Amino acid sequence: MNRSIDERVEQLRVFFKPRSIAVIGASSKPMKIGNVIVKQLKKRYSGKLYPVNPRHEEIEGLKCYPTILDVPGDVDLAVISLRADLVPGVVKQSIEKGVKGIIIVSGGFSEIGPEGARLEMQIRDMISRSEVRVIGPNGLGVLDLYTGVDTFFLPEERMKRPPKGRIALISQSGALSAAITDWAAAEGIGISRAVSYGNKIDVDDVDLLYYFAEDEETRVIAMYVEGLKPGRGKEFIEAARYVARKKPIVLLKGGKTARGAVAAASHTAALAGSYEVFRSALRQAGIIEAESIEDLFDLARALSMQPPAKGRRAAVITNAGGPAVMATDALERHGLEIPILSDETQKKLREKFPPYYVTKNPVDLTGDGSSEDYRHALETVLTSGEIDVLLVIALVQTPKLNVDVADLIVEKARRHGIPTVAMSFGGELTRKLEARLEENGIPVYETSERAVRALWSLVEYGEIKRRLGGD
Amino acid sequence: MNRSIDERVEQLRVFFKPRSIAVIGASSKPMKIGNVIVKQLKKRYSGKLYPVNPRHEEIEGLKCYPTILDVPGDVDLAVISLRADLVPGVVKQSIEKGVKGIIIVSGGFSEIGPEGARLEMQIRDMISRSEVRVIGPNGLGVLDLYTGVDTFFLPEERMKRPPKGRIALISQSGALSAAITDWAAAEGIGISRAVSYGNKIDVDDVDLLYYFAEDEETRVIAMYVEGLKPGRGKEFIEAARYVARKKPIVLLKGGKTARGAVAAASHTAALAGSYEVFRSALRQAGIIEAESIEDLFDLARALSMQPPAKGRRAAVITNAGGPAVMATDALERHGLEIPILSDETQKKLREKFPPYYVTKNPVDLTGDGSSEDYRHALETVLTSGEIDVLLVIALVQTPKLNVDVADLIVEKARRHGIPTVAMSFGGELTRKLEARLEENGIPVYETSERAVRALWSLVEYGEIKRRLGGD
Repeated sequence: MNRSIDERVEQLRVFFKPRSIAVIGASSKPMKIGNVIVKQLKKRYSGKLYPVNPRHEEIEGLKCYPTILDVPGDVDLAVISLRADLVPGVVKQSIEKGVKGIIIVSGGFSEIGPEGARLEMQIRDMISRSEVRVIGPNGLGVLDLYTGVDTFFLPEERMKRPPKGRIALISQSGALSAAITDWAAAEGIGISRAVSYGNKIDVDDVDLLYYFAEDEETRVIAMYVEGLKPGRGKEFIEAARYVARKKPIVLLKGGKTARGAVAAASHTAALAGSYEVFRSALRQAGIIEAESIEDLFDLARALSMQPPAKGRRAAVITNAGGPAVMATDALERHGLEIPILSDETQKKLREKFPPYYVTKNPVDLTGDGSSEDYRHALETVLTSGEIDVLLVIALVQTPKLNVDVADLIVEKARRHGIPTVAMSFGGELTRKLEARLEENGIPVYETSERAVRALWSLVEYGEIKRRLGGD
Repeated sequence: MNRSIDERVEQLRVFFKPRSIAVIGASSKPMKIGNVIVKQLKKRYSGKLYPVNPRHEEIEGLKCYPTILDVPGDVDLAVISLRADLVPGVVKQSIEKGVKGIIIVSGGFSEIGPEGARLEMQIRDMISRSEVRVIGPNGLGVLDLYTGVDTFFLPEERMKRPPKGRIALISQSGALSAAITDWAAAEGIGISRAVSYGNKIDVDDVDLLYYFAEDEETRVIAMYVEGLKPGRGKEFIEAARYVARKKPIVLLKGGKTARGAVAAASHTAALAGSYEVFRSALRQAGIIEAESIEDLFDLARALSMQPPAKGRRAAVITNAGGPAVMATDALERHGLEIPILSDETQKKLREKFPPYYVTKNPVDLTGDGSSEDYRHALETVLTSGEIDVLLVIALVQTPKLNVDVADLIVEKARRHGIPTVAMSFGGELTRKLEARLEENGIPVYETSERAVRALWSLVEYGEIKRRLGGD
């Protein structure tokens, strides 16, 4: 494990940017894993693709080879989808062939008991004596939205692929990776690359953190982790501290409570360990902790769209009292400041506002707030020098506010460089507003609490960067 | 305020089931509040409708009257949409006419300062000397999905109306009521009646709690409250304790923190008071507390679809390890028990399962779980006598699970009478599963945390009923 960072990154490139892939256990039967993988790769992967299966001449219109050793020319990456007991043999052949990476999607290893663990040990032995890197077994492998590498073995009818984006996903739960992928596609949330490493007999969180730190398409790293490999804690923190200076890392921990840890042990044989210890390690490492899958992506979206904050002073501009009250509650709970705006700033606001608008902070334009009122409030608050982050609440059910307020929020936030998120809530019209904001880099949330969590993550990441000395 | 419960309920009926309505300040200008109200009432309200405006002969095809006193025959309910300073005069006329209820949607009263407060005081004086009841001012009034009473003065282009349902909504924030209504319509969440009482100079939370307790169409009462009227705390708790025996009450409090309370004071002039005091009062009163708008409806949906639980023992059936681990964490945090299933039950489960399925609890069918496996797990767990509530996690991205698992969950949960909620997560296929479950009374949530909150509310309400001696 004494590899330099550059070396690690270089080694992992093969999983995302291979020039050629052999699929061992390729199948011609629709819905079979070995068939789905070939089909998906054919769709978007532009390198050379070799199905391997001794019982076929051709699969999905591609020439099929009896073994990987029969493939003419080099193979960068081997993808293995075979019964567990057959896997060690083909791993051996793949190493002989000189592949640089192997993804094993098969299950039936340590997660099912001692027999499986023995097979896993055999593989571990072989790879420790070579330069090859392995992802898996018992995971979905890799989904790369940029290069088309896709071993997530679920057909698109079951699991849609999300658009290209800036969030990398590392997940210890295969089913969760699939559900997240499908959900992200439905929500239009962009992903750069996703890795489901299963039992992680080789490539793990540490390696992937370093890789994604250097990955150009990735702006934020989102992780679901139940436990680290034994003895890997120190390296994980080291890696995170290195990476967090460059990019935000958001992590959701499974198995936080005693019973949750037991469930995690049944699930991934992970040692979930004491959550309190883990938690303080996360803080030390500059990792932002998420509270649920929803929260993981709420924060990742904010961090991928908006810059980190320079301080903790928040302002709220709203046309609805209730959500602003709830936002104020949430801001206070998250330790953000909600300064009363200076007399000067309030005076400026009042110059164009009727007397019943509230100018303290939250700035409440009431149900009468128009787009023009938002323009004045945004300009005045964002240039006041009194705040570091901004939450804009805009409910478009009110008679005087139109969807075009989105353009104002986008323009003003961009011009003045203050990290900004929005909250809105409703039906059709609200969705139009949301789309217009999100397309232009303002993340939108359905509740004040979620919007404040997002704002908090921007503040948190600002502090992390200052603490770790980020670039 | 010394009215009997029956009397209160009887008095409030006029707001939801009036035989005739006069709209004072009716307008013929599209988008004007007085026009939207007449238009909306014309659409779905089947009683007599009288626009009142001295400058018009006819509005929206209806004969228009100069004043309410000119309307022939009785008027049950007056809806007032006029400039604040004109309101006391027409309130006086309405009382003279003999109306039983008045809804004032106009703003410009105590929320804008001393002048408005004086107007409010004048109205208060008049109504205290009569039997008339008033909702408002400075609120949206009433939206009744069963009778078509609709003073929510936003056209359907801005705010869609939700389907008829079983959740009553009481809200201190007008904009929030509008956004919730629009959102519920988009999500297909059914509402029975919604009240936005604004400054609540007369009808308040206490009155509405009693009313909805007796309301046949309402199964759950959802509330957003920033503060009670001064001196109304004791009556509120008394009312809640009375109502909670019959129906669950879920409440979201705005203004929990010191800064939130300040914001609430600017918003609704409500005295938010100490949250800790309020919170312990809620518990005493048998009210279930929500954490956000999303949570308010998550819990209300569960409580409107599923029976209260008989105990705290939860089981989880899943085909995905990660979400089950997170559910276990959340169950433990919410103080629910997750008993390891008895040897006998586990043996029964294993009879039909491969050895790598986990049978302890969570029961994890892994990514291989089929609908048949769910059938066996549901039947065995639900008849074990070892659990009081059930969470079913079903991710349909996995190759072997189909949407028809929904029918099994519905059938088994119904047959065995164990409160059940589901968690699923993904895209198109997931939405089909969701629809099939929800139509048949199984609430579905997108994250384990939210599903567990819902389960917790069913446990909580079971305990409240036992404690208060519900029927």
